[in-house]
Parts: sequence; C-alpha cells; structure tokens
Amino acid sequence: MAKIKKTPRPKAAPPKGFRDYFGADVTERKAMLDRIAEVYHRYGFDPLESSAVETVEALGKFLPDVDRPNEGVFAWQEGEESDKPGDWLALRYDLTAPLARVYAEHRQDLPTPYRRYAMGPVWRNEKPGPGRFRQFYQCDADTVGSASVAADAEICAMLADTLEAVGIARGDYVVRINNRKVLDGVMEVAGIAEDDARVRGIVLRAIDKRDRLGVEGVRALLRAGRKDESGDFTEGAGLSNDSADVIMQFVTAKEDVISRLSGYLSDGSDSINAPGVRLLGQQISYLENPGPTNRNPMVGVFANDQVTKYLSELVSTSNIGLEGVAELEQVRVLLDAQGYGPDRIAIDPSVVRGLGYYTGPVYEAELTFEITDEKGRPRQFGSVAGGGRYDDLVTRFTGQQVPATGVSIGVDRLLAALRMKRDAAPATGGPVVVTVMDRDRMADYQSIVATLRQAGIRAEVYLGNPKNFGNQLKYADKRGAPAAIIQGSDEAARGVVQVKDLILGAKLAEDASVEEWKDHPSQTEVAVADLLDEIERIYRLHGLPLPDAMGTR
Amino acid sequence: MAKIKKTPRPKAAPPKGFRDYFGADVTERKAMLDRIAEVYHRYGFDPLESSAVETVEALGKFLPDVDRPNEGVFAWQEGEESDKPGDWLALRYDLTAPLARVYAEHRQDLPTPYRRYAMGPVWRNEKPGPGRFRQFYQCDADTVGSASVAADAEICAMLADTLEAVGIARGDYVVRINNRKVLDGVMEVAGIAEDDARVRGIVLRAIDKRDRLGVEGVRALLRAGRKDESGDFTEGAGLSNDSADVIMQFVTAKEDVISRLSGYLSDGSDSINAPGVRLLGQQISYLENPGPTNRNPMVGVFANDQVTKYLSELVSTSNIGLEGVAELEQVRVLLDAQGYGPDRIAIDPSVVRGLGYYTGPVYEAELTFEITDEKGRPRQFGSVAGGGRYDDLVTRFTGQQVPATGVSIGVDRLLAALRMKRDAAPATGGPVVVTVMDRDRMADYQSIVATLRQAGIRAEVYLGNPKNFGNQLKYADKRGAPAAIIQGSDEAARGVVQVKDLILGAKLAEDASVEEWKDHPSQTEVAVADLLDEIERIYRLHGLPLPDAMGTR
Repeated sequence: MAKIKKTPRPKAAPPKGFRDYFGADVTERKAMLDRIAEVYHRYGFDPLESSAVETVEALGKFLPDVDRPNEGVFAWQEGEESDKPGDWLALRYDLTAPLARVYAEHRQDLPTPYRRYAMGPVWRNEKPGPGRFRQFYQCDADTVGSASVAADAEICAMLADTLEAVGIARGDYVVRINNRKVLDGVMEVAGIAEDDARVRGIVLRAIDKRDRLGVEGVRALLRAGRKDESGDFTEGAGLSNDSADVIMQFVTAKEDVISRLSGYLSDGSDSINAPGVRLLGQQISYLENPGPTNRNPMVGVFANDQVTKYLSELVSTSNIGLEGVAELEQVRVLLDAQGYGPDRIAIDPSVVRGLGYYTGPVYEAELTFEITDEKGRPRQFGSVAGGGRYDDLVTRFTGQQVPATGVSIGVDRLLAALRMKRDAAPATGGPVVVTVMDRDRMADYQSIVATLRQAGIRAEVYLGNPKNFGNQLKYADKRGAPAAIIQGSDEAARGVVQVKDLILGAKLAEDASVEEWKDHPSQTEVAVADLLDEIERIYRLHGLPLPDAMGTR
Repeated sequence: MAKIKKTPRPKAAPPKGFRDYFGADVTERKAMLDRIAEVYHRYGFDPLESSAVETVEALGKFLPDVDRPNEGVFAWQEGEESDKPGDWLALRYDLTAPLARVYAEHRQDLPTPYRRYAMGPVWRNEKPGPGRFRQFYQCDADTVGSASVAADAEICAMLADTLEAVGIARGDYVVRINNRKVLDGVMEVAGIAEDDARVRGIVLRAIDKRDRLGVEGVRALLRAGRKDESGDFTEGAGLSNDSADVIMQFVTAKEDVISRLSGYLSDGSDSINAPGVRLLGQQISYLENPGPTNRNPMVGVFANDQVTKYLSELVSTSNIGLEGVAELEQVRVLLDAQGYGPDRIAIDPSVVRGLGYYTGPVYEAELTFEITDEKGRPRQFGSVAGGGRYDDLVTRFTGQQVPATGVSIGVDRLLAALRMKRDAAPATGGPVVVTVMDRDRMADYQSIVATLRQAGIRAEVYLGNPKNFGNQLKYADKRGAPAAIIQGSDEAARGVVQVKDLILGAKLAEDASVEEWKDHPSQTEVAVADLLDEIERIYRLHGLPLPDAMGTR
C-alpha cells in the first residue's frame, strides 16, 4: 500500500457518497428484508452470502451498462508495493456477478435448478449526487439452470407475494411482464438487422425512456435524435419514418388496446373480443381523466389474454416475435392457475428493462399509488424491482450456456415507499429511563432496571453525569422514552418509586386542557413491587406494544 | 484504476482468504444475531450501520495491535489515474474505528451517553490461513460518554444475558472481569516505570499467554526471554527476579485464592474469610482432579468479594492499583444488585485483553464446556467475546477525551460453539417438491404449489428437465425435501395426488424392518382437497415445525 499523508486532525466524515444508518433506519430495513426472506424461503429459495470482495477477473466486464463499460468499481491490487504484485481485487457492484462466480465454482454440488436469494450491500465507484450513494443494498432472487418460463412466472408471483408481505396493499402495485423476444420481433418487423446491436440498443433505451420523454421524445430518438431543454443533443437510431412507425405502434400498444376496448377510438375497429375483458373500476376512472397526474394510467388495466392476442397481431410476420408472444401466453396460463390476475401481474409491452443481456421474459414491479414529487406535482411512485431471463450467466467461466432468470428489489426505494404509506408516526421504540437521584444508590437503580428488562421491557439507567436532574429528563426525551422512573432517598426509604408518563406529559405540555387526558395523572407513585403493573398501564394507555413476557404475567 | 489484464477464461473462485456462506450457514448466523440484537435492544442500545468504506485518514492508525501498526487494511486511492488523485479509502478493519468517526461527526445530535450496537463484516488484509479469513463478522456494543463503571457492569450483565439468549446454558459460560488499573498497580509494585510502555506491553502480553505457555513460560518472558519448541527465541521484559516474583504472584492469584480457601495449601494461611465463600460443587470436583482436561479449572469458582479483598492485598502499596480494586468492588456490588453472581460474572485477575488502549475495566466471555481439540484432546471451548474501557475514542478527531466502554462478540466462534452444543442434527428445512409428470400440465403443478405456499408450507415445483423422473426424486433428496408430490394424468383425471413421505422412505431404505415405522405407508394417495391434511400429518409424524397458518386452519 502506498504512503499515506498524516494530518494532525482528521475530518470526521464518511467518504463522499457514503452514508451511515442510525436506529430505525437499520431496524426498519431489517424488518422489511426479514419479511422478504420469509417469502423467498417459502418459495424454496436458499440464501447465499458471497464475499464482498471478488477478483476483478471473476467480476468480468463491470457494470452491465453499455454506456459505461469497464468503469464503476472500487478496485485495488494485492501487494501493490511488494516485489510480487498480485491479483486485482474489487468490491462487488451487484449480486449477479458473484452468483455467476459461485455457480460456476460449485455447480457440481448445487441442486439443479438452483434457487438462491441474496441480500447485502454493493458498491459503485460513481460520481455521488443527491440521493445517489456509492454503497447501497440489493436484494436478489434468481433461479439458475431452468429454461422453463415457469421459473419466470414463479418469480413474478413471488414478487407480488413479497410486496404484499412487506405491506403494499393489493391495488397499490402491479408486476408488469414482457418478453425481449417480442421486442426483437417488433424490431424485425421494423427492418432493423438482428446483428445491429448499436441501433437495437438505442431503440430499446428510447422505448424505456417513454415515461420520462413522452411519445414525441421517443420518436425523436428513433429518428435522427433529440435535443433536450438544455440544448444538449442525443443522437438517435436513424430509423426511417416507416420503421419508426412500427416501433411507435408498439410503444403506444397499451393505449391502443385500452382505447379500442373502451370504445374511445373513433375508428370503430373491433379486432379484440371486448366482452372477455376485465376492466378495473379505478383504472377506468384514470382513463376518463388521464391528466398529468397519471402519466402511466393503463398499468394493469386490461386482461392479459387480450394483450397477448394484440401483440401477436403486431409481430405476426416475425418468428422470434411470435415465440415471445407464445412464452408470454404460457406465463399467463401459469399465473392464472395460481390466481394471479392482471390486477396483480399484467402483461405489458412497454416493459423494456434497459440492460442488454436479457434474452426472454423481463419484468418489473411498479407501485401505482400517488406521491408528490420534489416539485410538488402528484405522480406514481414507480418501479421498485425488476429483472428477467439471461442465458450467459456462467459462459465466461465454463463456456456453457446456463439459463437463468432473476429479480432485484431496490431496497432503499421500497423502504421509502413503505414509509410514505405508513399510517401514523412510528410508535416510540425508546426505552424506559431510570433516573439517578443519588449517585451512591446506583445498585438500587440497577436492580430496578434489571426487573424491567427481565420482564422484556426496554430500559436504561441514566449513565451520564447525574448532577443536573433536568439533563436526565432531557436525555429521556431525546431517547423517546415512554416513561421515566425516579427514586430519591425518601422514596427508597418508603419502598416506592415515582413513574413519570412522558408521552402524556408531552401531550399535556402541548395543550393542558385536552379533555381526554384530564383524568390521567402524568406522574404516579407506586410501590416498587407494583412497578411492572404501572408500566403496563402506561403502555396500554398509549397503545405501545407490550413484550410477550408481560402479557402472560 | 490501473489497466486490467484480460484472460480468456477467469478462475471461478473468491480471492484468497475470502469465502461464501450457503443456506443454513446464513440463516443460523442470522438467527443468532437476531437474538443478540433483541437483548441489546432491551438494554437500550440503538443499532448503527456505518459505511463499509472509510477514508484512511479517519480510520487512523490501523489495526490496534502494537506488533503491526500501519498495515492490515485493504486500501486504494480515489481517482488514482486521473489528473487529480483524491483521498485514500479503505475497508473498515473493525467496528470501533467507524464508531469513533461517527461519534465525532454526530456528537451534538446523539444522546449522551450514546449506547450503540453494530453487526457486520470487517476486512483485514492479512495472510489467510486455515480458519483465518480476510472478511469476517463482528458484533459490537459500546457505551460512549459515560465514565461510570455502571456502564461496564451493564455490558457484562448484557453479555451474560446474550449468551443465554442464543442458547448457552447457565454453567456453560462465565463472563470474567478485571481492571487494567489493578494490572498497572501490580507493575508499580514490581517497580516497572509507568512510562516504560515497551516493558509494560511485554508483561501484559506475557500474562495474557498464560493459558498457552503455562506458568513457567510466562516467567521466562518476564525475565530474559523464551525459546519455544521450534527453537525460536522471543525476547522477554528483562525483569529482575524480585520483580518477576511480584508479577507471578498476581498471575497465580486465582490458584492461590482457591487453594487457601479450600485448605489445599499446607502453610495454613487464612487471611481470607473462608465461610463467606460460595464454592460451586462442579468446580470443586475440578479442583480435586485438575488434570490436563481442566487447564483453567477455577473459572468462576470463588466469591467476587473474596477476590477483590485478595487483590487489594497484592496492590496495597499502589494508589492506581487500589483504585482499580475499588472499581472492581463497585462493579461487584452493581452486579449483585441485579442477581449476577460469580457463577455468571466472575472477577478474575487473569483477564488481560492484549490491546494497549484499555484504561479501566476489561472483560471477556468464556465458554467453559469441554470440546475435543484438533489433536483429540479435551479442552474448554474458550473465549467468545471481549472488551473493556478506553478513553481516547474520539481524541484524534476532536482533541477531547470521551470515556467509552464496549464489547465485541466473535460471531464465528460463538456460532461454532452453538453448533457443537446442539442436541440433534438440524431439522430439515427443505421444501416439499411437486414433481412434473406431464410437462403440459405445468399449470396444475403450479396450482398445487400455490396451495401449499399459501398455507405457509415451503414448496417448489421441479423446474429442471422433467424427462427423467428419477432425477426429480434425486433433486428432492438433495433439497432435503420432507415430501414429494406426484400427479400423472391418471391421478389428475381422478382429482388425486400421490404424496411420498421422503423422511420415512429414507428410514425404511436404511432398515426396512424398523418396527415403529411399519404401520406408516411411505406413499399415500389423497384427494387434491386433502393435500394439506396429508402434509400436516407427515410434518407432525416427523416433528417438523408447522407454519402458524397451518395450525389454525
């Protein structure tokens, strides 16, 4: 390792783009991941925790983004300063590259197919920005070694179950599924050569940006290019007008289907069997009022079988396209058999997933409830998870193609969504604080706190300098303590303690005349033997969760 | 980042010294850490998850080992190849250095004292070896900002509760506590200058090696030095005979106390009030048979107040020593008040804790049950956690001394201990496997598996190539499946499934004549509607845990 500049007083801050998580930030994420792991477990997925550090060689080409190959990782060389420098090592940038390495290494011992989930931090050496960190959590589930679309359908079902398990209500989310082969078919129909990876890449990314750029923006990117508001020019795919028309027909397929179904199109075309369609009430109203608040109004709205029918029309002259539609239809049947209708899992041709390596089904989970964006405008919460099928997972290690499909949940985004949906302020998780009146009687206070803890109550003795009693109560406030316990020498002599109900105290301080609290005293003297009863009374009064051990006393 | 050599086929292996964790390795560690976190929470400790990456500047001097300063971390320079190289960054090597940085950064907003716990991986750039990894878990709890020994006593009590919570029975562990000031006092009595850090360091490490080197080995290290079996010479502290005698009197203090108490010493000395002593039956028998199986036979054996009394004799001419004994006596009183006697938390002068930065109480948790070492000899399991008080946590950031005390649990060692103590083989956590007889009826199999999952049963459809049915049953075995479900077209037509009890099948295959299983069929045909009942019967028969959802059907 190279020499390090010594400074007399280091700066107390994490490196740029890194952050720390305190208290509830840690426990809330953990609770969410625990619930996700329960669902994954029920689906037969096994946990894998691979090392955070990999050889650069095993990680292979870095971030799976064609725009920026070969950059974006934190890497260093082993024994850089020694006579014999060794391997280059790097922090993992996702959980898929390590899965590839692990599967290639252990494929003889792992079951086939191998269902695994992984949760943990990944690192990206990117320019940090607001809300953009260089260490963040990922939560992945993949099935390796199954070519069956049943594996894709299973992951979509699991994703729906997962969202409900963490607390997203049915109707507040939709898992959208598409198939890359359908997209390939559309490109074939538009006359874009199969090996023209550059143009196909631009087209895919253009379609993917539809929500942000709108229909006209996508069309500009399909043709010569697009100038944005700042004047910057993005080069387009250079398609002819006719080719762009084919792609755009696909881009607006959702609206077309909906409009036809609902009789909103004036051309009277009726190639779809309208009576078979399930339209959900809420989304019909979206349709009637499709203002800026519902930029993506058709999510999950129409019957999956009608969509596959319509898609087969669009790609009718492409074999690969029809193959893709047939796979979507198989997925639909499998999901129907398990009771997942289009209100939960919708076939949706607008799903692209930007990454180049997907080869079949692609899917993403979107939260459909409304939030207010940073400019105060209402919008849908948007995507919280995505994935798809890819076949070259271990090829670079073994030379063999192993089919795989998997999903990655955006942990931070999903957690942010849960916080927005939460009804009330979080219940206080603060400890009962036992204050210290007489420094010499610390053993008595320790005895009191031990009694509380043994009953399962979170509790602390104040361990700062006890001289200023006001500081102790300030400390209790800062800790979110529901109650404080006070015992001076007088109380000790009489075998009693004072119990201060701090939640009630705060309410009374806000408005002393609050009717409903008038009959409740905010400080009570009880015998030491009755302390647990009094704490239980306060917890019940404020609806705080009681530990199991208390309930059964 | 420097250029990276491209190779056609990378090696599928983690970097040297790194490892992956699969399945139960992940879930068992997680279950243990969850139980630890519950106890920490109950004690009022809040979680902190700091970033894995720190600036080298903030990490400061690296590993807290006087033998190897300034090495042992994985570090790299930001923007190394750019025009403007930036900070040196490094992976954290423990959880204490990040705590110092976080506390210095946020001390205005954090409560005082700040109780925090942290769990997560740390990285050491050391030569890997058998059982010695470069990424491993730590689990720490620290109280920052309290000078009171009540904070130390609290952590010892919490450590005892933690061990019991994860499944170490009372009697199988002891938390041992000492005080660095007592050690300082002994050195003062032995005439070693306070500022002679080199000699004091050698003496501390010599005492700490007592278990491994024996009494004579320690004595050699106190004097000129010691030649080990391989002929290597370790330089000693160079103490005079008299000085070494003082230290050795302290090193053997435990045995001396015990022997006097039990009348085993022939000199008839009786400076200790024997009737006040609690001797535990089991350990008395150790004493009567102190063979090689009990190298540390006196652990937790004698009353804490007798020990502080004896120690005060040993350091009677040293003020700092007497101060240390007084602190130990305070800790004793606080622990007594909470019901922690010497059977759980023992004052033990042999605890040193190698690290130089401890300034007051030091403590460690030892598991006292017997295991068989790699050479087949019985020995005690040994230490699984340790810590102590240190006062220079944030000094380098702020210039201020902030008192702190904390403990670190060796996660891997404690987990290994729990595995050894576990009664039986772990219950199978494998999923029920729904086999695929007819590829075309995948929707039926998906419907069956959905029914099982909705009841909370872990279940899978076989998603490999279904052609060879034997492979499907082999797969079920590999997954540890308790049952397999089979439905051919004939069964489908009749609305039934075959349920194979694979646990019973394995038992019968081992010994077909096993009396107790004779009445149980290993394959049963049931109506699809009765499938959950049949699965429940099999789970109950083999004592497998049923999901909550099943019990209440």
